Amino acid sequence: MSSNYPNFRNSVPWLILFLEAVFIVLFYFLFSGDGPSRSSISYPAFQDVNHMVIFGFGFFLTFLKRYGFSSTGFILLIVVLGVQCSVLVEGLLVLLLQRENEDGLKRITKAAVSMTAVVISTGAVLGKTNPVQLILMTVVEIIVFHLSRWINNTFLQVPDNISMMHVHLFGAYFGLAVSSRFSEPSPRSEKNSSTPKSDLLSALGTLFLWVFWTSFNSVLAVNKSKAIYNTYFALAVSAVTAFMLSALTTKDGKFRMTHIHSAVLAGGVTVGYAAHSIDYPWIAMILGLLASVITILGSYCLQRCLNPALKIHDTSGVHFTFGLPGVLGALAEVVLFIIKNWTNLPRLGYSVMIHLGAFCLTISLALIAGFITGLVLSFKLFKTTPVSKYFEDQFYWEFPHLAVGF
Amino acid sequence: MSSNYPNFRNSVPWLILFLEAVFIVLFYFLFSGDGPSRSSISYPAFQDVNHMVIFGFGFFLTFLKRYGFSSTGFILLIVVLGVQCSVLVEGLLVLLLQRENEDGLKRITKAAVSMTAVVISTGAVLGKTNPVQLILMTVVEIIVFHLSRWINNTFLQVPDNISMMHVHLFGAYFGLAVSSRFSEPSPRSEKNSSTPKSDLLSALGTLFLWVFWTSFNSVLAVNKSKAIYNTYFALAVSAVTAFMLSALTTKDGKFRMTHIHSAVLAGGVTVGYAAHSIDYPWIAMILGLLASVITILGSYCLQRCLNPALKIHDTSGVHFTFGLPGVLGALAEVVLFIIKNWTNLPRLGYSVMIHLGAFCLTISLALIAGFITGLVLSFKLFKTTPVSKYFEDQFYWEFPHLAVGF
Amino acid sequence: MSSNYPNFRNSVPWLILFLEAVFIVLFYFLFSGDGPSRSSISYPAFQDVNHMVIFGFGFFLTFLKRYGFSSTGFILLIVVLGVQCSVLVEGLLVLLLQRENEDGLKRITKAAVSMTAVVISTGAVLGKTNPVQLILMTVVEIIVFHLSRWINNTFLQVPDNISMMHVHLFGAYFGLAVSSRFSEPSPRSEKNSSTPKSDLLSALGTLFLWVFWTSFNSVLAVNKSKAIYNTYFALAVSAVTAFMLSALTTKDGKFRMTHIHSAVLAGGVTVGYAAHSIDYPWIAMILGLLASVITILGSYCLQRCLNPALKIHDTSGVHFTFGLPGVLGALAEVVLFIIKNWTNLPRLGYSVMIHLGAFCLTISLALIAGFITGLVLSFKLFKTTPVSKYFEDQFYWEFPHLAVGF
Repeated sequence: MSSNYPNFRNSVPWLILFLEAVFIVLFYFLFSGDGPSRSSISYPAFQDVNHMVIFGFGFFLTFLKRYGFSSTGFILLIVVLGVQCSVLVEGLLVLLLQRENEDGLKRITKAAVSMTAVVISTGAVLGKTNPVQLILMTVVEIIVFHLSRWINNTFLQVPDNISMMHVHLFGAYFGLAVSSRFSEPSPRSEKNSSTPKSDLLSALGTLFLWVFWTSFNSVLAVNKSKAIYNTYFALAVSAVTAFMLSALTTKDGKFRMTHIHSAVLAGGVTVGYAAHSIDYPWIAMILGLLASVITILGSYCLQRCLNPALKIHDTSGVHFTFGLPGVLGALAEVVLFIIKNWTNLPRLGYSVMIHLGAFCLTISLALIAGFITGLVLSFKLFKTTPVSKYFEDQFYWEFPHLAVGF
Repeated sequence: MSSNYPNFRNSVPWLILFLEAVFIVLFYFLFSGDGPSRSSISYPAFQDVNHMVIFGFGFFLTFLKRYGFSSTGFILLIVVLGVQCSVLVEGLLVLLLQRENEDGLKRITKAAVSMTAVVISTGAVLGKTNPVQLILMTVVEIIVFHLSRWINNTFLQVPDNISMMHVHLFGAYFGLAVSSRFSEPSPRSEKNSSTPKSDLLSALGTLFLWVFWTSFNSVLAVNKSKAIYNTYFALAVSAVTAFMLSALTTKDGKFRMTHIHSAVLAGGVTVGYAAHSIDYPWIAMILGLLASVITILGSYCLQRCLNPALKIHDTSGVHFTFGLPGVLGALAEVVLFIIKNWTNLPRLGYSVMIHLGAFCLTISLALIAGFITGLVLSFKLFKTTPVSKYFEDQFYWEFPHLAVGF
Repeated sequence: MSSNYPNFRNSVPWLILFLEAVFIVLFYFLFSGDGPSRSSISYPAFQDVNHMVIFGFGFFLTFLKRYGFSSTGFILLIVVLGVQCSVLVEGLLVLLLQRENEDGLKRITKAAVSMTAVVISTGAVLGKTNPVQLILMTVVEIIVFHLSRWINNTFLQVPDNISMMHVHLFGAYFGLAVSSRFSEPSPRSEKNSSTPKSDLLSALGTLFLWVFWTSFNSVLAVNKSKAIYNTYFALAVSAVTAFMLSALTTKDGKFRMTHIHSAVLAGGVTVGYAAHSIDYPWIAMILGLLASVITILGSYCLQRCLNPALKIHDTSGVHFTFGLPGVLGALAEVVLFIIKNWTNLPRLGYSVMIHLGAFCLTISLALIAGFITGLVLSFKLFKTTPVSKYFEDQFYWEFPHLAVGF
């Protein structure tokens, strides 16, 4: 352990302790009354979302060969910090806006769903940020995301469960904007790659996400059974399409694991906005198909053209895994809305404007806030990880001995 | 990547695209009306079955040391294709036979349970079939399985949830019949074996299957709590017996992982038929014990005598893991039925004939359809995998670099 | 495999067969009547606990580099044996004490929760006991634990769901007492350590335990929603604190995986006693923080001072992972009780005595019974594993070939 390694002993513990102390004090003032005890969220559905965020995303991001500890460990750290922060921000909004109090289970569920944004952003900067930066990013992002939802709910009258579905969009573009302020890894670096073993662990996480995505889309929905049904078929078709396009776009007609990782989930992201309102499964299936197409085509265009031009390095490809399918989903919702209500033209125009406004506002806020966050985090004060130490567990974790052959 | 490797680019994507297009068109015509919105299936129970089929079986089959990607990936591919196909066939039957419409969640649950047959068959031909063959096998098997269930329900008056439990029997014997048409791997091949690491991943899948098997047996049952209770004890006793017999049959009194893999689940398979009707747990426990015994003895007899004689190579041992316990379960159901109703002799004889008829019909259909499918799939047209390339991920998946020590 | 390896063929199978035969006969006599069919336990909550005990603990204990098969395999074996044993002991108590009959699902759930004690004890002697010793320990421990609960319930009027929460305390101290009778492993042994790969698998198990701990604490609670809410926040804060203290106590400010493993769960253990009665989340959060502190400080003091002095070797550190947080939780419950009821002084003193009595009784019984069990198990009759063969899968499992690089 040479002196090249910075010592986080004077920053990480005190930052965490400070945050945790603030959280406990705020909890003391905010949640000392009784909420309603009967919950509108079923416990198994909450458990699925909890499982998915902690475990699914934790292992989804283990594909880097030397970054398994950090992927699972840091996701746990930021989720548990972020959930507390998110519950507090919601509690503050309830207090300030005199909204109705929610029960405990619903509070945690909404906080866990919101945390998906931060987890997705983490995917974009994975391996390039140190824990201090990650923790600060978490706190800022969760506050800005709640701000964005509050504007959507209050000024644009977007229902709460729809504004929550902007979580993928917000997370992806916030993460990309943050990532644009970090140096790109050296192209010759061997560490920014996967081994079959780490890919298999990542597949384990992907399958978890796939299985629990129906719970994610339905947990806050009004018409739960419709949301489950449509999400399942969208996910199924996007998994099928992922295999099809993967074999079509590789040199020898072989499958590529990274295609499968990102595209099997695309259908779930896309259908999130409209899952509770789609009447026939074939519409969800077509959305799933388009989502998978946009993900795999997007991964080509972005990695070849856009990212090098903009000098953005997107470790887990969150732009095409969550960003593009999210954009598609938001647009699809508008189109479906127009088809359904085309007879009532005056009201239609207004509603479409609202939908598009919410969409643009979310992306703009994400990009601006992300850019500023990235700028602040790249200050020297935060001991930015040197490019040569990117994607390296040993930088943050004590290894009992050098692991040969890991 | 030498020219020895066939290029699936001209076949796999177009086959998948064709199937998916057909599915979407059929969904458009079949499911554009509203089903009942209140489901008789609880969402967590559906989620357990979904989790078990996608994740449990995906990792259950990762024991081959160089076939982990294909095991998990192809299971996902065939399950998502097969579920759509199965929902469609059920929808067609509802339309043609003027049956009552079912709600969306029940449709997907029944489709996922039916897909277990295909997943089990895949276990028998694991590593020997290419994706084109797997996809075709999936479609044919799911159609024939529904045909078999339809005959059982209509002509033999077998209740729907009992005919569904033939899924293990059907899957195992269909898979064996298909497998009989594929060349056996070279006995000197090192690839047809496991490493401790792949065995541990496979144990992970096995434990998932073990935990969720109670959900599988109870999800469609009428008396759910009885089915859960009996399945749990049958599984527990068969796990205990698996350890006992494993230590008794190996040279040094050690445990063998493959014994544990197959025998811990045997009790769940066997008790599937009668779980909802067994009154006392000790009966389920004895069935679990017998199931485990027949699995481990069966694995000896089959691998030493029957398989070499019939030139069948059964990669995951589905014959003794699912086939023999299924046969035992079907017979046990008849015996339990006789014991319960021995006072009413005239009706008894008729009922026993019906039970045995359904059993024989299912196995015969599975064997005949499997044999024909195997025959067709071994045509040169389908670019059968050469024996030297059996059990090889690199044949179907792009590896970013050669993985040393995988 | 040289003759140094003892042959368990003449002991393990017959012991298992004998136990299983006794179980089936007792089930025949005890459970041939009908219990109530409507259960107070929801099936998904039972499934979570089942999943957690079999899968979560199975993989939680896979951190030893050459002991993965035994960790997962033996946990499965002892859980399925122990659950049957526990259901029987409860059934006997119901029969002898003329208590009310419970339904099947509740019986299995309570048995699975009780088995946590045995699984924790197994953690203390992991890698040092052979299967015969493990099985005997399971049977003895489950009987003594029920005895302890029966004394608590009958003589000290402790409610059933509170006495069940002594499971962590009982398990930890029973395991430590047993462990004190086994030789310590050689300090130069390389096998008593982890690799990054095995640590990652263990992290997988830890995350499972973390996610399902809310189900564990709430499944038998009266006020389920409060128990869920408080447990979640206690777990969240203890995870955060684990990262903080880990960075603070290591040389370079790095995180240590073993700290995270043990301390993230501490909050759940501590809050188990009072989760259903804590009114405000900030109290649960402070308990979570204290639990994590006591775990990490405890791990220092115990491993440096107490364990070498007492010659106790605690493989998985159950003393500080489950023992100390359990003690803290029991004391915290008393303090919270005093704060709540300090106006009613006469009744208060009596109640506090009862609480402390139950706590002391449980620990004393655990220590005494564990010590006697350890003494008996170290008889030559049981073929104690030689120190040089500690932590070695190959001692108990057949390996198809020598696994290089495992």
